[in-house]
Amino acid sequence: MTEQKATNIVWHEGDLGRDERWKSLGVKGATLWFTGLSGSGKSTVSAALEQALVLRRQPAYRLDGDNIRHGLNKNLGFTAADRVENIRRIGEVAKLFADSGCIALTAFISPYAADRAIVRKIHEEATLPFFEIFVDAPLAICEGRDPKGMYKKARAGLIKGFTGVDDPYEAPVTPELVLKTGDSAVKACVAQCLNLLEAQGLLGGGAR
Amino acid sequence: MTEQKATNIVWHEGDLGRDERWKSLGVKGATLWFTGLSGSGKSTVSAALEQALVLRRQPAYRLDGDNIRHGLNKNLGFTAADRVENIRRIGEVAKLFADSGCIALTAFISPYAADRAIVRKIHEEATLPFFEIFVDAPLAICEGRDPKGMYKKARAGLIKGFTGVDDPYEAPVTPELVLKTGDSAVKACVAQCLNLLEAQGLLGGGAR
Repeated sequence: MTEQKATNIVWHEGDLGRDERWKSLGVKGATLWFTGLSGSGKSTVSAALEQALVLRRQPAYRLDGDNIRHGLNKNLGFTAADRVENIRRIGEVAKLFADSGCIALTAFISPYAADRAIVRKIHEEATLPFFEIFVDAPLAICEGRDPKGMYKKARAGLIKGFTGVDDPYEAPVTPELVLKTGDSAVKACVAQCLNLLEAQGLLGGGAR
Repeated sequence: MTEQKATNIVWHEGDLGRDERWKSLGVKGATLWFTGLSGSGKSTVSAALEQALVLRRQPAYRLDGDNIRHGLNKNLGFTAADRVENIRRIGEVAKLFADSGCIALTAFISPYAADRAIVRKIHEEATLPFFEIFVDAPLAICEGRDPKGMYKKARAGLIKGFTGVDDPYEAPVTPELVLKTGDSAVKACVAQCLNLLEAQGLLGGGAR
């Protein structure tokens, strides 16, 4: 037998299966898709949940307007087609994070049921857990909060097609979780999310 | 002082800083950008490296044709504009993974220096470590391997604009690492990558 030369490397498929990956890292991946009106508390609750998860050493990562609109989706506007593509891309990236063993948290109004159905399907086809979380606060409360002054601008006609003002919000019919942020404190909402993850066996334990 | 009602929640910015995130998870993020001809060994080396990292419990995730072309970038073709957008999106997603505390590995030919400069800049602007890894094997060797039969098709004129045949490959001028996969075994290349990460203080240790 001749000495194996480096040029005779046998190229093998080195892919790590998802189970092996998750087991080795001591994690499980999933996507929590927060949907709701502007000002409903999606960002606040998902940021607090992200913090709670990471501080218990569970990898979690939040996709939101800040890191998506100015990066991956900076070449998208607000036409109907661009809005669909915006949500589709976010769904695809969330899927990759979930596959990697991370809890992906997405915080976007995502007002249309059809778009949310697409991202759910993306996860189902990849056999990854997907949870639609309806951040359900009455319009009046959201508008009262108006954290970015968007409702004011929309009411003044300075912004067109703003969800809840002159564009519809299609509430989830069968979400995995409903957070009544008008009635519940942030911590209580975070607790609801953690309970959901716990009940699904997605938290803690593992190899760590 | 009146009792605080849940409707009076003080909405706070709950964002986790990157340092706190990485420290809590015991990880550091970075992107290793593998570039080279089809058949040069990008996928093989990056897959083996991913496995080596995950098995030592360092979160790592590979972006490649399999999980990008049929997902996030399935609406892109092979026009000049689409090729640029393909690489840009991959760079943006790698940045998110690196930010999350994961070692992102990308395995795409990415033949144009300008496109690679864009993804490097995306990382620099986010102050995230970025390493361009030139998977450098002679065309003759790559074509001899021809794992997907693409060179054969390109030579037969069945595919147009194939890198190395009728489209240029612009080799990196100052890559952070060069892997001579024509001369070195996969394990040796993986070792080179691990040494690079180690030297940069990006491996192991941490809180785990």
